[in-house]
Amino acid sequence: MGTTQLETVPEPKYWHLKTVLSDALDSEFAVGEILPNERDLAARFGVARATLRQALEQLELEGRLQRRRGVGTTVAPPRVGVAVDPVRHTWPGAAGDDWQPVDAVESDAVPAAVAGLLATAPGDPVHVVRRSRVTHGRPVATELLYVPAAAVPGWAPAASLSAPARARAVLHELQTLELDGQDRTVELGSARAEDARELDRLPGAPVLVVTTRYVSGGRTAAVAVSTYRADTCRLTFGESDAVALLAG
Amino acid sequence: MGTTQLETVPEPKYWHLKTVLSDALDSEFAVGEILPNERDLAARFGVARATLRQALEQLELEGRLQRRRGVGTTVAPPRVGVAVDPVRHTWPGAAGDDWQPVDAVESDAVPAAVAGLLATAPGDPVHVVRRSRVTHGRPVATELLYVPAAAVPGWAPAASLSAPARARAVLHELQTLELDGQDRTVELGSARAEDARELDRLPGAPVLVVTTRYVSGGRTAAVAVSTYRADTCRLTFGESDAVALLAG
Repeated sequence: MGTTQLETVPEPKYWHLKTVLSDALDSEFAVGEILPNERDLAARFGVARATLRQALEQLELEGRLQRRRGVGTTVAPPRVGVAVDPVRHTWPGAAGDDWQPVDAVESDAVPAAVAGLLATAPGDPVHVVRRSRVTHGRPVATELLYVPAAAVPGWAPAASLSAPARARAVLHELQTLELDGQDRTVELGSARAEDARELDRLPGAPVLVVTTRYVSGGRTAAVAVSTYRADTCRLTFGESDAVALLAG
Repeated sequence: MGTTQLETVPEPKYWHLKTVLSDALDSEFAVGEILPNERDLAARFGVARATLRQALEQLELEGRLQRRRGVGTTVAPPRVGVAVDPVRHTWPGAAGDDWQPVDAVESDAVPAAVAGLLATAPGDPVHVVRRSRVTHGRPVATELLYVPAAAVPGWAPAASLSAPARARAVLHELQTLELDGQDRTVELGSARAEDARELDRLPGAPVLVVTTRYVSGGRTAAVAVSTYRADTCRLTFGESDAVALLAG
């Protein structure tokens, strides 16, 4: 192919090893199989442990390997497509949305980046709804949804409600507002300790962070920060239903 | 905040170091400043080089640090928002699209995943257009656009054209087709050697891979695989123009 005709880049040693390992995964291992330990692998390929570890990290970034707590390194199944906006132009929690409400608290300390988007001042009360998303029985994403109390004035969840019911009550209150629009960013992040636990990952594991801003009445009425496992997820965006077009 | 009340996760040593380093970046370093070398940093924080390296990798994942070839590790500026679909429901190369055509070649060997989406058989000729994207004078993304020759039958770029002109000719030919729809996936990847060179990164650096499928006449007429730097980019998706709504 033409693109390989260009000036050659020196290849780091772990990069070559990664290619060799990738071929070995294809030919010798099945999905879910546990890899031999690092010492044995390093010996087999005649490389230093540090080089091996770099190659394994690459393969994890590419979704070929998974490191699982208490299990070891296993051969990953193909990534699962997860629709980021299955129900378009709706508030979170609308019918067809497949997130599970976990709890809701009122907080006066939200992350600076979120406060910036919400245009809240330090100390302003904000409802923080936690939700989680499970696909094929596996946790794939966790979310914190920030709703300034000022966006739903004169309302507070009844103290007697259970945690998930409190979360549903905040979502229900959002639905009463008119949604003018939303926008979204996707970036690379590393899992915070709480998210890592929920996602069955180690703290610091690479994640895809989707930040959605919901606009109502000329102000940002809510911001959702959703953290997706980067090893198992492919985020899908259906600008139009290409799959349906192809099937039809 | 309520979410911190849950059962505590044991914190790896590098994770704690990452937090300490992150604070140091805020208080002692300016954007673009070069960090001291690993040996000095490890000594200052009283940790092993391996632990330090893990913490630096985390900060790179989070976009706080950049590793640059021949320069070292520098404090990263805030990530730049890059619009993935600034001109919606159009073919690549439409007016307002800010990718630069680089070249086009005809290939009969496309990656298996792309061949799957295109439903091409091995050996089927495919036009491969290479494009690049520069924001604020910095390369942020590189793209390979695959167009099966069968999607633009009876057409081939004139051999006399320059490389960018060949690329523009393929894009121009796409515009003559009716676009029924498109869909898109975003996932984590690691930079291939060619992409790394174009993006001024080391091979294997984390990248965000955006795969767009363009449907015309009931078939996939083109697939674009765009590779964005994960350290400097935040991908933005404007489902509606929330920024304009807020400004108005």
